[in-house]
Amino acid sequence: MAVGLGPLPTLHPVPGFELGISSAGIKRPGRKDVVVMRCAEGSSVAGVFTLNAFCAAPVILAKQRVNGPVRYLLTNTGNANAGTGEPGLANAARTCSKLAELTGVDADAVLPYSTGVIGEPLPVEKIEGALQAALDDLSVDNWAAAATGIMTTDTLPKGASRQFQIDGVTVTVTGISKGAGMIRPNMATMLGYIATDAKVSQSVLQDLIRDGANKSFNRITIDGDTSTNDCCMLIATGQANLPEVTEAKGPLFDALKTAVFEVCMEVAQAIVRDGEGATKFVTVEVNGGGNHQECLDVGYAVAHSPLIKTALFASDPNWGRILAAVGRAGVPDLDVSKIDVFLGSVCIASKGCRATTYTEEQGSAVMAEAEITIRIELGRGDCSETIWTTDLSHEYVKINAEYRT
Amino acid sequence: MAVGLGPLPTLHPVPGFELGISSAGIKRPGRKDVVVMRCAEGSSVAGVFTLNAFCAAPVILAKQRVNGPVRYLLTNTGNANAGTGEPGLANAARTCSKLAELTGVDADAVLPYSTGVIGEPLPVEKIEGALQAALDDLSVDNWAAAATGIMTTDTLPKGASRQFQIDGVTVTVTGISKGAGMIRPNMATMLGYIATDAKVSQSVLQDLIRDGANKSFNRITIDGDTSTNDCCMLIATGQANLPEVTEAKGPLFDALKTAVFEVCMEVAQAIVRDGEGATKFVTVEVNGGGNHQECLDVGYAVAHSPLIKTALFASDPNWGRILAAVGRAGVPDLDVSKIDVFLGSVCIASKGCRATTYTEEQGSAVMAEAEITIRIELGRGDCSETIWTTDLSHEYVKINAEYRT
Repeated sequence: MAVGLGPLPTLHPVPGFELGISSAGIKRPGRKDVVVMRCAEGSSVAGVFTLNAFCAAPVILAKQRVNGPVRYLLTNTGNANAGTGEPGLANAARTCSKLAELTGVDADAVLPYSTGVIGEPLPVEKIEGALQAALDDLSVDNWAAAATGIMTTDTLPKGASRQFQIDGVTVTVTGISKGAGMIRPNMATMLGYIATDAKVSQSVLQDLIRDGANKSFNRITIDGDTSTNDCCMLIATGQANLPEVTEAKGPLFDALKTAVFEVCMEVAQAIVRDGEGATKFVTVEVNGGGNHQECLDVGYAVAHSPLIKTALFASDPNWGRILAAVGRAGVPDLDVSKIDVFLGSVCIASKGCRATTYTEEQGSAVMAEAEITIRIELGRGDCSETIWTTDLSHEYVKINAEYRT
Repeated sequence: MAVGLGPLPTLHPVPGFELGISSAGIKRPGRKDVVVMRCAEGSSVAGVFTLNAFCAAPVILAKQRVNGPVRYLLTNTGNANAGTGEPGLANAARTCSKLAELTGVDADAVLPYSTGVIGEPLPVEKIEGALQAALDDLSVDNWAAAATGIMTTDTLPKGASRQFQIDGVTVTVTGISKGAGMIRPNMATMLGYIATDAKVSQSVLQDLIRDGANKSFNRITIDGDTSTNDCCMLIATGQANLPEVTEAKGPLFDALKTAVFEVCMEVAQAIVRDGEGATKFVTVEVNGGGNHQECLDVGYAVAHSPLIKTALFASDPNWGRILAAVGRAGVPDLDVSKIDVFLGSVCIASKGCRATTYTEEQGSAVMAEAEITIRIELGRGDCSETIWTTDLSHEYVKINAEYRT
C-alpha cells in the first residue's frame, strides 16, 4: 500500500562503511533480522535518540557510547528490548561484547539498536549466533540488503543517496531507514543510518544530524505514537581525500549539509509513504503562525485527527473536520476570521468559513489524488512548519489489531 | 455496538421543564431532528461550552444569552452550523426569533443548539417549519423522545435520572446527552441537557455544571477531536417547594450536587459506551502523579494512542504499547523505574518493566472483557485522574469514512 514509494534508488557505497546481514530467526526462521555495520577506524559518529522516557535498553547504551570511538553498529529486528529494565541493559551489553570479542575491538566501540515487540526478553543467544555470518557478509555494497534487513512492518525498504564533487573529489552521502508504525519521532526516527565518506568533526556532525533530523524525521507522524527505540545515526568515515570539516561553514560544509538534509528528508518521507495501511501521503503546511510552536500545534492537531485521517482515506473533502482540528489546537487567542484553508491549490475556507468560490467537485478532485497537501494560513505572523502524515484506513486497524498474532 | 448501554432508564419528569420533538427533514425526511425545551418562568439556566476556537454559531449565541432570562432551548441535528461565519450567526438568530414570535417571548430568551455536519448552511426554512409541531408536542413526559431526537451517529439514546427527598419534598434531576464521534469535550460535551426542579441561583448553578462537567464530560474521549458544538446545559425550574439554593453548602446543595454529578457521569459515560465503533469501554486511571495535569497528560496519551486502541479492539494485552505511551506523555523527569501498570487487577509492569508474576494468559483474560481498566501508578505524588475511552475498530474507520455518503 506504499504511496509513491518505488524500488530503492541507487545507493552509492560509502568508502569506509561496510554492512553485513544475517538471520538469527528472532521472529521467523530464515528472516534476515541482524545487521552489522562497520565504520573505518577514525570515523566520527553522531546520533539523535528518542525522547520517550521509556527508552529502550539499546538506546540507553548507544547514547552512552556514541561519543567515544565507534567501530560497529549492531541492529536486530523482531524484538525492541524496551520495557525490559536492568536485564534488558545487560542483554544489550552482552550482544555488543560478543561482537567486540569476535572483532577484537573494545565493547564500548559497539553500539546496539533494536526494533520490534516491546517488553519481551531479547533472545541473546540467537543474536550472538548470527554475528559471525553478518561479519562474513560485510561489504560496502550491502546498503540495499541492509535496508531490507532492518524492516519490521515496513512493506518496502527505504534509502536515499547523494553525491557531490568538491575540489575534484567525489563525496557520498547514503542513508537508510525503517519504520511504518509507532511513528511520531521526537528527536529521531525509528531507525535511520546515514553515512558519508567526508571527514567531519564530532561536534559538527552532531549538529548536522540534530538539525537534519529536526527538519525531516521530527516532522513526520503516522499515529502520534513516539517509539521507545527511535535512533538516527550519522557516520562520517573520513575516507574522502578532503580536509576535515570542523566548522559549520564553507563550501564543503554547505554541500554536505544539503546532501545530508536531502537524504534525511527522502528516507523520512519514505517512512510516511510506507505508513501502516497508508493509501495517501499527506503534507500539512501551516503558514502565518506567530511562532513555530503554534504552527506545529496546528499541524499535529490536523495530522493526528482520526476524523481527518478517515476522511482522507475515504477521499472525502470533509473540510469542516480540518477547521475543527485547527480550532482545538490550543493556539491562544486564535482569530478564526483570519484563517484560510487550502486543499491542494483549492481554497476551501476563507476568513474562517466556506469559501464562496469553493465547490464540492473541486475538493473531491484533490482528495482523489494519492498525494495531498493541506495548507493552513493562520494570518498571525511569519512562521511556517510542515508535517507529513498518512490517512487512517481499515488496513491500519487490521495491521495493529493483528500485530502479535 | 454500544458497550454495556441498555435501554433508557426511567427518566423522571422535572416539573417546569417540557420537551417537544418534531421533524424538519434536515438530513432525512421524517427523521425527528428538532427538539424544543421550555423552561418555566423564573428558571435559572447555566451552561458550559466548547473551547474550540472555531466554535459554532449557535454556541456563540447561546453563550451570549445564557445569563439573561431563558425560556426556550432549540436544538437541531443534521447540521452543526459551524464554520459558517456571519451568515451562520444570522441563521441561528433567525430560528430563535421565529420560535420567540410563535411563543411571545423575547428572542434573547431562546438559546440555539446544533449538531451534525460542519460547514453547510443551516436549512432555516425547514427548521422554522417544524417549530409549531414541536411546540404542540411539549410535555414534561418527553425526555425519552428528546433523547432520541438529539441523536446523530449515536446508536442508542442516553439519559439518567435521580430523585431525592429533603424536608418531605421530592427533588428530581434528569439529564440526556448525545454524541459518539468528535468526542474529546473541553468544558462540555457534544450536547447535554440536565434539569432539576430545585430552585438554584444562577451563580451556584453555573458552578455546579462547571464542576460536574469537569469530572465527567471533560474526562471522556473517543477520538481526541474536540467538537465545535459542545454544550452542556443545567436548568433549575424552581418548581419544587423548597427554598432557593444560593450558596454551595447545606444538605439540599449537597444532595443536589450528588444527583447532578451522578447524572453528568452516567450520561457522559453513556457517550463513551456508544462511541463510534466501540467494542470496549475503557477506564484509564492514573494515580501517584505530582500534579493533576501530568495525570491527565499520561491518561490522554494512553486514551488517544491508536496502537493501544487497536490492541484493545483485538483483545491483545500488548502492554508494551502502554509503557510507550506513558513514556511519551511529556511528564518532566519521569522516573520509569517507579512506574507500575495494571490491567484490571493484574500487575503487568512493575518498576518500569514486565512484572515477574505476569503471564500472557492473565493479560488475555482481562482484555477479553468488554469493560477494561488500565491503571497506571506513577509513584511521584498523590494526584489522580480518571479518563474514559473506547477502542479503535474497523467499524470506527467505516463510520467515519462513510459519514457523508
